[in-house]
Amino acid sequence: MSKPKTIGVLTSGGDAPGMNAAIRAVARAGITKGMRVMGIRRGYNGLINGDMFEMNLRSVSDIIHRGGTMLYTARCAEFKTQEGLNKALQVCRDVGIEGLVVIGGDGSFRGARDLSLLGLPCVAMPGTIDNDIGASDYTIGFDTALNTVMEMVDRLRDTSQSHDRCSVVEVMGRRAGYLALHAGIAVGATAIIVNEVPYDFERDIVQVMLDTAKTGKKHFIIMVSEGVGGVAKLAEDIQQRTGIESKATILGHVQRGGSPTIRDRYTASLMGYHCVELLDQGIGNRVVVLKKDQVLDLDIYEALQIKKDFPVDIFKIAHEISI
Amino acid sequence: MSKPKTIGVLTSGGDAPGMNAAIRAVARAGITKGMRVMGIRRGYNGLINGDMFEMNLRSVSDIIHRGGTMLYTARCAEFKTQEGLNKALQVCRDVGIEGLVVIGGDGSFRGARDLSLLGLPCVAMPGTIDNDIGASDYTIGFDTALNTVMEMVDRLRDTSQSHDRCSVVEVMGRRAGYLALHAGIAVGATAIIVNEVPYDFERDIVQVMLDTAKTGKKHFIIMVSEGVGGVAKLAEDIQQRTGIESKATILGHVQRGGSPTIRDRYTASLMGYHCVELLDQGIGNRVVVLKKDQVLDLDIYEALQIKKDFPVDIFKIAHEISI
Amino acid sequence: MSKPKTIGVLTSGGDAPGMNAAIRAVARAGITKGMRVMGIRRGYNGLINGDMFEMNLRSVSDIIHRGGTMLYTARCAEFKTQEGLNKALQVCRDVGIEGLVVIGGDGSFRGARDLSLLGLPCVAMPGTIDNDIGASDYTIGFDTALNTVMEMVDRLRDTSQSHDRCSVVEVMGRRAGYLALHAGIAVGATAIIVNEVPYDFERDIVQVMLDTAKTGKKHFIIMVSEGVGGVAKLAEDIQQRTGIESKATILGHVQRGGSPTIRDRYTASLMGYHCVELLDQGIGNRVVVLKKDQVLDLDIYEALQIKKDFPVDIFKIAHEISI
Amino acid sequence: MSKPKTIGVLTSGGDAPGMNAAIRAVARAGITKGMRVMGIRRGYNGLINGDMFEMNLRSVSDIIHRGGTMLYTARCAEFKTQEGLNKALQVCRDVGIEGLVVIGGDGSFRGARDLSLLGLPCVAMPGTIDNDIGASDYTIGFDTALNTVMEMVDRLRDTSQSHDRCSVVEVMGRRAGYLALHAGIAVGATAIIVNEVPYDFERDIVQVMLDTAKTGKKHFIIMVSEGVGGVAKLAEDIQQRTGIESKATILGHVQRGGSPTIRDRYTASLMGYHCVELLDQGIGNRVVVLKKDQVLDLDIYEALQIKKDFPVDIFKIAHEISI
Repeated sequence: MSKPKTIGVLTSGGDAPGMNAAIRAVARAGITKGMRVMGIRRGYNGLINGDMFEMNLRSVSDIIHRGGTMLYTARCAEFKTQEGLNKALQVCRDVGIEGLVVIGGDGSFRGARDLSLLGLPCVAMPGTIDNDIGASDYTIGFDTALNTVMEMVDRLRDTSQSHDRCSVVEVMGRRAGYLALHAGIAVGATAIIVNEVPYDFERDIVQVMLDTAKTGKKHFIIMVSEGVGGVAKLAEDIQQRTGIESKATILGHVQRGGSPTIRDRYTASLMGYHCVELLDQGIGNRVVVLKKDQVLDLDIYEALQIKKDFPVDIFKIAHEISI
Repeated sequence: MSKPKTIGVLTSGGDAPGMNAAIRAVARAGITKGMRVMGIRRGYNGLINGDMFEMNLRSVSDIIHRGGTMLYTARCAEFKTQEGLNKALQVCRDVGIEGLVVIGGDGSFRGARDLSLLGLPCVAMPGTIDNDIGASDYTIGFDTALNTVMEMVDRLRDTSQSHDRCSVVEVMGRRAGYLALHAGIAVGATAIIVNEVPYDFERDIVQVMLDTAKTGKKHFIIMVSEGVGGVAKLAEDIQQRTGIESKATILGHVQRGGSPTIRDRYTASLMGYHCVELLDQGIGNRVVVLKKDQVLDLDIYEALQIKKDFPVDIFKIAHEISI
Repeated sequence: MSKPKTIGVLTSGGDAPGMNAAIRAVARAGITKGMRVMGIRRGYNGLINGDMFEMNLRSVSDIIHRGGTMLYTARCAEFKTQEGLNKALQVCRDVGIEGLVVIGGDGSFRGARDLSLLGLPCVAMPGTIDNDIGASDYTIGFDTALNTVMEMVDRLRDTSQSHDRCSVVEVMGRRAGYLALHAGIAVGATAIIVNEVPYDFERDIVQVMLDTAKTGKKHFIIMVSEGVGGVAKLAEDIQQRTGIESKATILGHVQRGGSPTIRDRYTASLMGYHCVELLDQGIGNRVVVLKKDQVLDLDIYEALQIKKDFPVDIFKIAHEISI
Repeated sequence: MSKPKTIGVLTSGGDAPGMNAAIRAVARAGITKGMRVMGIRRGYNGLINGDMFEMNLRSVSDIIHRGGTMLYTARCAEFKTQEGLNKALQVCRDVGIEGLVVIGGDGSFRGARDLSLLGLPCVAMPGTIDNDIGASDYTIGFDTALNTVMEMVDRLRDTSQSHDRCSVVEVMGRRAGYLALHAGIAVGATAIIVNEVPYDFERDIVQVMLDTAKTGKKHFIIMVSEGVGGVAKLAEDIQQRTGIESKATILGHVQRGGSPTIRDRYTASLMGYHCVELLDQGIGNRVVVLKKDQVLDLDIYEALQIKKDFPVDIFKIAHEISI
């Protein structure tokens, strides 16, 4: 494959803070390397419908610090059909798009692979707050979401402490407990409940709370992953069993927004740049990832096979220092 | 009455950011004026049980910026009985407490009045995030809670915008819509729904959204007061009726915590100081309030009669500039 | 005078958080009332050069939470000449501007008065972080700047405390000590030094620090207004005289920026709306102000005569509770 | 060596956000493993003077979210003498301290090595905002300081943008440009000036600004490392040479404080835990580091030899995407 004259960039799936930094890096690097860069709106929908615009250096000014995505995002059922793929390819041919950067989760990666196999070189990079991509140690948005959770729970702590209460907090992560684990460590949660590690209500919550209460602790945070859910019931059970007043809070979509942290802006910038470097060499069908703190790229198909092992050792440490 | 040798200070009811600034002002002003100041724990419970400690100048160091209350807070059923009141008075006699500062909501004011009538001069000041005290234009904690709501909804806005969604947000305020009104204005909510103003689903939400959508707006915030509630159902109805994807979020107890804003620290400091000045002159049975931006005091009984008029004119302005 | 068909809005002088909320309220209220609203760029320069654009309801979408001013701002020497004024009036006639909202400090008010006297009804409102407008209890941007100062000094406190140090902090306010006074109270500054109150180095700083040190305090914050200045030298003197390690920090222009707080968004919205209501009735030559927590308007000339009394009583309370 | 019955923990050198999370992990892990844990105040001074206290599980409650260090910190000249070392060892013998965790920069590591060689097993971990420890990819406090810088520059951006100005910002880092590099990328600085990379005023600042101005950019951020300094003069030169109004800001000690970010709390917790695990096995003379995202330990002496290579490739990317 040869260097593309025009590339496109889109964001797909759930939005994540840092996506704008990635878009900016893609646009700036592309233009600097002499390409035309098209900003495609609302994920694969924009590709199918030709909803896009040519970006210049200033199109991405003053967006690095904004949450969300300036290109908007959406899921796209049509794109999963052969007809949708064909439409998208036709639009690319019409516009002259010869390479594509896709920022999103693993659903978005599949689309990038499909297009690559059909002849349009695509490079994907992980943008999702859940950090649930097996191929990458890190996904854009994770750090911002974590800090948002942490700040919200720090506020809950104030009121839990004033009232000698237990806060049962549900954080996002339908399929993965990384947000709960990291945030749980950072706020000093008495217990962290995730799908990946079986738990026993009596042993892992009640007994830990009662033991800790004996040392003088009077307020508690129980961190629960969305995939486990059921926090309202859990708060009731805890209150009934321990006698400690317990309140449930579901942090909700607030976790998806906000100005990205330095880690997300920085990593997104390097990943976005790397995506363009690949396309610039005519390389497609790759996922850009962070492995052992380095920006690398992998074959999309192989990347999609990689499972992530939940760090059970860190989970145990969390428990040991949160007494 | 004469100048008290010893005064007590307690926080009662729901906690509110800025309570620590008030406690600090009471302790410092009291000690500076030559009094002994007792910090009473967990509201009227501490008064009944003698759970208190003598404060010195350093007891309140480095607390002005902390959320919650260093004296803890709780509701106290026993205190509403004659027996509870008698116990509290006996403890005060035993300890030598000759004046009391009570920081809390109107439930707490009633206790302060009861004690005052029984001979213990009490001065109360409004500490509640709801701003629902008729006698005072402002209650400690309101500004911090508002800024917390605002920051959370600013985050929601990012993700609503990326996805062309409607966010239906429930904010605290079981009996009063001030948080919803002020926050609604500050985040540019398309509609604000409070108990104080009847609303029509079709006219005030659906039609406004559809009209605004015609001008190009694609994401929306609907701000709902806790007293109205029902945001999950409301989000469903909006989605069904407008075709715009809608998500409900209940902000929850996060709104009660956090480092107090300047307005809460500043106002709490002046109010706390004023409480001590009153006790120093042997004056009790007063509530310290903010009226027209000035710190004043009123008779507790009279203060409890004052109703707050919901500012319907401002509510209308909010609607007019949020199209 | 009669209702204007077209009005303009501009921001002038130093920028202040909340200006965007004011612009938004002006544009939305104007359009709702049937006027055409022109956004004029870079203060009076844009008026002289015809640098402006017609605003629609969406021109001011998603700006209420942004710092700075979307209309940009600048000082304009030419506007102080008769020639400049004439040019501006000619542009207004050409474009059809029959009323003008000016958001800025008292320098900007004079321009609004001059234009009003020449037949163009102008309404001004106070936008400056310094709160140094005699006619108004509050100026847009003050609360955000205060919270920024407070958060920065809360950070300084962490490191001062860890090292048993004294932080000497210079905050903005060349002509007025309000930022220093309010922030000083909110961070618990050991001393507050402003132009409005003469101070004695030995009595008001050294002696207070040494007295407080005797009670166990080991870290200190000294808050100094920009108008007093000299913080590097002051830190040296304090260190030499007290033996306590002292560091100077000048907070600088960071204080001017940031997402506006609720108070600034709210007050700016109401003031901006009130400006349009006046123009809508053909009323010009007015300043919209906040007095005793109410939005009112005054004759510009009279408003410019009003001096602000520095609240010496609050200054004394600050001292008494910061020991 | 055998498992120690009592260990000590101290913080030394400049304070850094996250130190409290490390102290907490050390105390909790130590006590859980059956050791007595002594909290030593003000670095090696406390070791020499016996200024310490026995910690229990609750001693470190509610500190994980606080900036600074609850154990205070200081430099200690006496400890660099043989006499100082001997005193410290004698105190350890008297108290029964058989292992020590030292949290600080490389100066602090040398002390830990000296004590280890004299028979007291010490484990050090990197706590400094500068990220200037060759042996570790990451030092505790770096991420919090970066986010503080980023937030402050985001505020500066608002006012620079409103006024079409250039902000010349000095960030901490006397010996290392990591803060400037990472923050520069995250805020989209037009130029980043660090000691590690020689720069040419005309080519790297003036020309880049003028070239970017041609594409429509009107406001600029120039990020300068403390080791380079001279920002006041630089701002003047830029203004003179480009005609763009330029203002210098020195961010100062504010960068050292603040509630630690998730990354700092998380990493500090794991590192602190690892320190205790080493001591628990009787292992001393080690530095705990983060290498390729993993917590490892190295010989202190070897660690002190390791130089850090400034990532010139990332520096170049920063330049390419900030046009």
